[in-house]
Amino acid sequence: MQSIRDCCEAAKEASRRTALLDTETKRNVLRLCARKLILHTEDILSANRRDCDLAEDAGMSGGLLDRLSLSEARIAAMAEGLHAVAALPDPVGRELERIVRPNGLVIRKTAVPFGVIGIIYEARPNVTSDAFGLCFMAGSACVLKGGSAAAASNAAIMDAIHEGLLEAGIEKEAAVLIRQTDRESTTELMRMNGLIDVLIPRGSAALIRSVVEHATVPVIETGSGNCHVYADETADTDMAVRIILNAKTQRVGVCNACESVLIHEKKAPELIPLIAAGLETYGVQVFADDAARAIWPKWSKATEEDWGREYLDYKLSLKLVKDIDTAISHINRYNTGHSETIVTSDPVNAARFQQEVDAACVYVNASTRFTDGGEFGFGAEIGISTQKLHARGPMGLRELCSYKYMIDGTGQIRP
Amino acid sequence: MQSIRDCCEAAKEASRRTALLDTETKRNVLRLCARKLILHTEDILSANRRDCDLAEDAGMSGGLLDRLSLSEARIAAMAEGLHAVAALPDPVGRELERIVRPNGLVIRKTAVPFGVIGIIYEARPNVTSDAFGLCFMAGSACVLKGGSAAAASNAAIMDAIHEGLLEAGIEKEAAVLIRQTDRESTTELMRMNGLIDVLIPRGSAALIRSVVEHATVPVIETGSGNCHVYADETADTDMAVRIILNAKTQRVGVCNACESVLIHEKKAPELIPLIAAGLETYGVQVFADDAARAIWPKWSKATEEDWGREYLDYKLSLKLVKDIDTAISHINRYNTGHSETIVTSDPVNAARFQQEVDAACVYVNASTRFTDGGEFGFGAEIGISTQKLHARGPMGLRELCSYKYMIDGTGQIRP
Repeated sequence: MQSIRDCCEAAKEASRRTALLDTETKRNVLRLCARKLILHTEDILSANRRDCDLAEDAGMSGGLLDRLSLSEARIAAMAEGLHAVAALPDPVGRELERIVRPNGLVIRKTAVPFGVIGIIYEARPNVTSDAFGLCFMAGSACVLKGGSAAAASNAAIMDAIHEGLLEAGIEKEAAVLIRQTDRESTTELMRMNGLIDVLIPRGSAALIRSVVEHATVPVIETGSGNCHVYADETADTDMAVRIILNAKTQRVGVCNACESVLIHEKKAPELIPLIAAGLETYGVQVFADDAARAIWPKWSKATEEDWGREYLDYKLSLKLVKDIDTAISHINRYNTGHSETIVTSDPVNAARFQQEVDAACVYVNASTRFTDGGEFGFGAEIGISTQKLHARGPMGLRELCSYKYMIDGTGQIRP
Repeated sequence: MQSIRDCCEAAKEASRRTALLDTETKRNVLRLCARKLILHTEDILSANRRDCDLAEDAGMSGGLLDRLSLSEARIAAMAEGLHAVAALPDPVGRELERIVRPNGLVIRKTAVPFGVIGIIYEARPNVTSDAFGLCFMAGSACVLKGGSAAAASNAAIMDAIHEGLLEAGIEKEAAVLIRQTDRESTTELMRMNGLIDVLIPRGSAALIRSVVEHATVPVIETGSGNCHVYADETADTDMAVRIILNAKTQRVGVCNACESVLIHEKKAPELIPLIAAGLETYGVQVFADDAARAIWPKWSKATEEDWGREYLDYKLSLKLVKDIDTAISHINRYNTGHSETIVTSDPVNAARFQQEVDAACVYVNASTRFTDGGEFGFGAEIGISTQKLHARGPMGLRELCSYKYMIDGTGQIRP
């Protein structure tokens, strides 16, 4: 087995070539890899069955097992994903800015690949193919470290991808799968400064915390979402109910689902019975403060912890606030910088909320569930960034690029 | 003395307000702080004399002592710096992109302040005022940790800035100076996740390494520069000599100075005697490979270490290469991702060099010394980034901002 450093050095070397591939070549390679996934469906499924059997024996829970297990349809979806990325605009080489200086220097700020993108993720084999596709189209080599429970599946998927790469004349080190499964190797990967240009953890809050704690290479934190909907005093009642129900229940296990609702105390008497009825039909358990429970006593009592919780479940915290200032402070105290919504008819409060709430995506009168590369028109995404450095919110192909300055002179020297 | 956490929490709280200040207010505050620096010149100088006396007693070297010591003129230059920042365009609130989705959602990508910017620097008191000015104009609060040898100077400068802030009705926590001088406090600052939005180390390679090693908050690595000039086979001889001399000698102690020269072996016989003569007049010591020394035997012999060295001195490494491929590989192996130049008359080689060399700034026929916020037209800069995340090359006010998506809906929910 190659050492982590050797893997990363090979990827770095390969990245010199992937950076220079033209758009059509990259597209053809991705389509070829998609066909290889389909062609090797049986191999991948059989590897995946081994992973799933082991995981079941080890007592993996149903939800995780579902994420781990593949089917013909899921492999087809992975291949479709590669086709979809191949159809996106090439992010590399775009001229972002051109500056002509008085001394005649022409400075072109140009989008360039990162080089090597590291991705650490859990036992979800589809990420192997998705992450490769995005990194490759962005002109970078990737070093992938998936959850060990998916080791056989990931290896089978990577074999198919490698077959595609080699057939297209691309060195297979453009996509490296780390085979080591021990924790020390993962930590080593996080410290490959000079070889890994950016590291993106994808997965649970615990995984992301571990990467933030141990990494010395640059990291993009993709994060958990404690997303709020605030119904202002002037909120349209029907709209508020519709948005709260959609943000909470349209899909509960995702980071842009609503976890906490704030309601202006003057709006509460009218709104709460409607929200309560709606949430009940979905079986949502509400943890509310005393003021809300005075209106709807059936709700459970919220504890301090509930305000910071990302349930990812049919659960919701709910609180009354006396004004928009209280709503904004509460959100800025407890949120995770992901997605926040105000429902209001007051343009001043709408603008204040958007300006003052510190989050990647701040909505007026829309569901938090739109925070998504596809919904933003970016195409596939590698994750949602909850930090402020480099990329914030949905990260598509453009966010998977860096830039450089190319400067053309005619012999200029600095006086 | 306030704890590090209390300092950072106070700055975070203040940053909610600095983010909302309008352009004219920020400009007036910076000008007022500039006047306070001038007004308190005597206090600052007397504090600085205490620092310098202690440093001299402790045996600080001449170069460092020069960077530590202030004069009336240097304080005036700090004040001028604040005026210059006040004259720059406000980077906050710019609409970077507007997307209208088929469902009617309007997505505005908008430049916003980071929140709290941490800066760790060495015993250079002017950085206290420069860093405050840039962060404040960028709408962020700053937490500054200067070298302990400049403690009294930094405190006196910060007192003057605080007087300006308070007089303008701005809370003084918009600019926090960390008073702790122990190493543990510095490490604690690097781990204030959720309070420090970005941390920028400014100073020696050792300081930057330490920050990269210990920080868990997002870091922008501003770095050392092992910058190359490559004279291609078709280089204009006069231009090559002029650019090499300028890049090496115009100012030797800076990160964008040339540290290593590569020469195409066919160009070497003509070029080397001219370069040697020029470098000699500046007293530059050259560490060359055997092929170059065969042409100019007076040069010292280079060791492997020389190729990776940032001398910051009248020293230079020099090597002959057989073609542009070798030049590019050598640079990508030894450089620090800062600034690189090719001197050539061949447009194909020029384009290849710019595409394939992995650095923030890649020049054709110009001196590396232009990598600088002022020279790029950005105005003052906080540093030169040598990493690829978020900002690369000179970082001015725009690079000191993040962005958020503000999304306006009319009740949209996700189907």
